[in-house]
Amino acid sequence: MTDLVVVGGSDAGISAALRARELDPGTEVTVVVADAYPNFSICGIPYFFTGEVRPWQSLAHRTAADLEAAGLNLRLDTLATRIDVAGRRLAVRAADGTETSLGYDELIVATGALPSHAGIAGVGALTPEDGVHVLHSMADTFALDRDLAARRPESAIIVGAGYVGLEMAEAFVARGMRVTQVQRGPEVLSTLDPQLGALVRAEAEAHGVDVVVNTTVTGVERAAAGLVVTGTHAGGSFRQAADLVLVVVGVRPNTGLLVRAGAAVGAGRAVVVDEWMRTGLPHVRAAGDGVVTRHRLLGTTYLPLGTTSHKQGRVAGENAIGGDRAFAGIVGTQVVKVFDLVAARTGLLDREARPAGYAPRTTTTTADDHKRYYPGARHIHVRVTGDTRDGRLLGAQLVGRRGSEVAKRIDIFATALYAGLSVERLSELDLSYTPPLGSPWDAVQLAAQAWSS
Amino acid sequence: MTDLVVVGGSDAGISAALRARELDPGTEVTVVVADAYPNFSICGIPYFFTGEVRPWQSLAHRTAADLEAAGLNLRLDTLATRIDVAGRRLAVRAADGTETSLGYDELIVATGALPSHAGIAGVGALTPEDGVHVLHSMADTFALDRDLAARRPESAIIVGAGYVGLEMAEAFVARGMRVTQVQRGPEVLSTLDPQLGALVRAEAEAHGVDVVVNTTVTGVERAAAGLVVTGTHAGGSFRQAADLVLVVVGVRPNTGLLVRAGAAVGAGRAVVVDEWMRTGLPHVRAAGDGVVTRHRLLGTTYLPLGTTSHKQGRVAGENAIGGDRAFAGIVGTQVVKVFDLVAARTGLLDREARPAGYAPRTTTTTADDHKRYYPGARHIHVRVTGDTRDGRLLGAQLVGRRGSEVAKRIDIFATALYAGLSVERLSELDLSYTPPLGSPWDAVQLAAQAWSS
Repeated sequence: MTDLVVVGGSDAGISAALRARELDPGTEVTVVVADAYPNFSICGIPYFFTGEVRPWQSLAHRTAADLEAAGLNLRLDTLATRIDVAGRRLAVRAADGTETSLGYDELIVATGALPSHAGIAGVGALTPEDGVHVLHSMADTFALDRDLAARRPESAIIVGAGYVGLEMAEAFVARGMRVTQVQRGPEVLSTLDPQLGALVRAEAEAHGVDVVVNTTVTGVERAAAGLVVTGTHAGGSFRQAADLVLVVVGVRPNTGLLVRAGAAVGAGRAVVVDEWMRTGLPHVRAAGDGVVTRHRLLGTTYLPLGTTSHKQGRVAGENAIGGDRAFAGIVGTQVVKVFDLVAARTGLLDREARPAGYAPRTTTTTADDHKRYYPGARHIHVRVTGDTRDGRLLGAQLVGRRGSEVAKRIDIFATALYAGLSVERLSELDLSYTPPLGSPWDAVQLAAQAWSS
Repeated sequence: MTDLVVVGGSDAGISAALRARELDPGTEVTVVVADAYPNFSICGIPYFFTGEVRPWQSLAHRTAADLEAAGLNLRLDTLATRIDVAGRRLAVRAADGTETSLGYDELIVATGALPSHAGIAGVGALTPEDGVHVLHSMADTFALDRDLAARRPESAIIVGAGYVGLEMAEAFVARGMRVTQVQRGPEVLSTLDPQLGALVRAEAEAHGVDVVVNTTVTGVERAAAGLVVTGTHAGGSFRQAADLVLVVVGVRPNTGLLVRAGAAVGAGRAVVVDEWMRTGLPHVRAAGDGVVTRHRLLGTTYLPLGTTSHKQGRVAGENAIGGDRAFAGIVGTQVVKVFDLVAARTGLLDREARPAGYAPRTTTTTADDHKRYYPGARHIHVRVTGDTRDGRLLGAQLVGRRGSEVAKRIDIFATALYAGLSVERLSELDLSYTPPLGSPWDAVQLAAQAWSS
C-alpha cells in the first residue's frame, strides 16, 4: 500500500489523486489544498461573472464530498511549506498557523501557476479593495465579485486580450459596464495569427468593447478620476481612467516549493519533469501549470493549459503507484468563445514553427460549416500550416460562429497532428456528412486541399 | 492531351471530371448525364420537402454554367448505352432518340445506384401517379412534389427507417401529414446498435411519427381506402392504408453499362474496382455508388455514400490523366439529423466486426457535450467498440441533441480510426476545451476511458 501525498487541489493534483485511487483503491491519498476550494474549474470563472453560472459552488468539477467519497483525504486551507526529500516528509501549515508534517511514500506536487503582473507598477501594491484585480483563484473571484457588488463600477480597463481577458470583457459587457481592453501586441488573441485575431477583435468591438492594441501598460495608480492606467501606445503614451482594472496577462509557474527542495527549472521558468512526470528528486513527481510540458512538435516547452494538467496529473498518479506511463505530449490545442464567435488553434503558427526548425507555409480558406443551401450556413475561416519540405501538417487555426462545430473541427486537426499525418492525408479522412451539418468535403478538408494546391 | 469521357453527373462523375481538369487544364472532358440535373445534391432532397431548401435549383452543388466554366462539356439528357472497350468509344442516346458515339482515351463510369424495391409487390407497377414513390433522383423529387401539390395527401406510409426514411418522416410531419414509418428490423436506423436506435425512434415518435418495427412490407395496392400497404408483423400481419406511400429501403448499384462491357461484379453486386478505381477493362475506370469500396477495417465491401463517391471520383479523375493515386479507403462514417437529434457512426458495430475476424467489445457512456455548470449542457450517448485482443479502436456511435457537435465528434473517432489508434490512445489526444463547448476530458475520451476500464 502506497502512501501518496498530493500538493495542489486543482486539475493536475486531483487528477493524479483520483487516478491513483482508481488504479489501486488501497492507496492512501492525502491532498494538501492551499485554499478551501479543491477541484474548482478555473476556466469557468468568467461565466460566473456573466451570470450564467450561479452559485459559485457550481464551478466545482466535483464537491469536497465527492472527492472524499472517492477516497481522498483532503487537507484544506493548508499550505505545503517544505519538502524533506531524504526523509520523505512534507511540512505543512494550517490556516491557524499550526505547523506539522506528513510522511509519504510518493509525493506529487501540483502547485500550478500564479497570475503575472507583467511588471506593471502599482499592481500588487493596489489591491481588490482599490479596484485592481487579477483573476486566477477562487479568492480572486470572491474579491472581484464583492467589489462589483459594493462599488457597482461602471467602467473597466482589462489589461490583456487573451482567453481570460476576452471572456471577462464579455462578462463585464453583460453586466452593462463600459470596457476598454488593452493589448500589448498588434492584435487580440495573440495565440492566433493576426488575420484571424482581427475577426475576434471585430466581434468584441461589435459588442461595444473598446479595444486598444499596440499598447504596453506600465502603471496603475489611484487618482481623483478613479484608477488611471498608463502606458505606451504606438510610440506615444496611453492614459485612461476607469472604475476598475483587471490585469489578466497570463501566468507564471508557482515553483517555490519544488525549487527550494532542489528541483531544476527550465522552459518558462517551470519545473523540469521528464515524460514520467519525475522531477529528478527521489519519489517526487510534479504535474500541471507549474511544470514544463512535452509538445509533440516542439519538444519541451511551457504551455499552461487545463487539459494538459488533467493529462499530466493522470500520468503522475499512475506512475506514483508503480505504473510506467509516459506522458504522450500535447499539440497545443486551445479554444475560446468570444461573444458569438469561437476561435481555436492546434499545433504551430508559422512564427512558432520556423524557429523550431520547420519550413512552414500557411494558407487561409473560408468554407461553409454546412451546405449553403440548407438554412443557417456560416463561414468558417481556416488557416492550415504545413511543412513545405515533407507536407507534414503543423497546425491549424479556425474562427467561426458559435454553433458551427468549430471546437470539434479543431479536434480533427489535433487528432491528425497526434497521428503525424500530412496535410494531403486530410483529404483521405472519412468525415461525416449530412447537409445540415457538413459538406461532402468538410471545411477541414477544403482547407487542406487549398494548402496542397 | 487526354480525351476523358465521364458517364454520370452526380458526385463521383463530377468529382472525377473536375479533378482531371484541375490537375491538367488541357484535358478534354465530356460528361454524359442521363438527366438534366448534373451535380445535384441528392442528400439534400429531404430538405426540399421540409421547405427549408427552395427553389429546387438550390440543391445543385454547382450549376451547369459553373461546370461549363470549369471546362466540362456537358451532354445532358443523354443515356450511355454501350461501351466499345476495344474501340474506345461510348455509344449514347440523346433524349430525342438520336444515337451516336463518343471516342475517348479514358473513360470513367459513375452511374451510381438505383432505388431498391425490396421485392415489394406492386411497387414498380404502381407509380407516382398512383401515389407510390421512391426518392433517388431529381425526377423522383419532381414527381413527389407534384403529387403532394396536386392531391394534398394527409397521410403517408414510409417503408424504411434509414437515413432518407427518417429525414422524409420529418419532412412529411413538417407539412402536417400523418406519418407511419415501417421498419423491417427491431429498431429504426439499423446502422446503429438498437440501444441508440431507440433514442432516434423516441425522437421521431415525440414528433408524432407512428413507428412500426419488426414489420416486413410485402405489397402495396390500390383500394377504396387509398393505398394499402400489407406485410408481416411479429408473426402476424400488417395492413394499413394511407394517401401516399414512399419506399426508401436502400439502393442497388446501377451496373448495366459496365457489366454489358464485361466488368465483374462483387460485393453487393457492385462493379469490382481496385484501389486505382480500375475496372479491369482497359482504359475504363469506375467510381461511386455503382462500385465496391475499400473499407479500411473490412477490406472490399459495398457501402454507397456520397462522401465516398467524392473521394473515389477524385482518385479516378487523377488516375485517368496519368496519375497514380490509390484510394485510401473509408471507415464508414455517417451522420443524420432526425428532428432535433443527431445520430452518427464510424467504423464497425460488434455485429459487423465479429464476422470480419475481430474480437469486438462495445461499451456505452453518457457524457455531457460541455461542462454541466454552463447553461445548455446536453447528454451525448456514446458507444465505443474496440478489439479486446489488441485494444484497437474499431468503431463508435454517437447520439445527441442538435447543436452538441455530434457530427464533428464522430469525426474525431473517424480520424483516429484512419490512423489505426487504440482506444486507449484516445485519452492522449489533445482535444480543445472551454466550458461552453467541451470538458477537460471530452465526451469522446470519457467514452474511451470507460471502454478501457
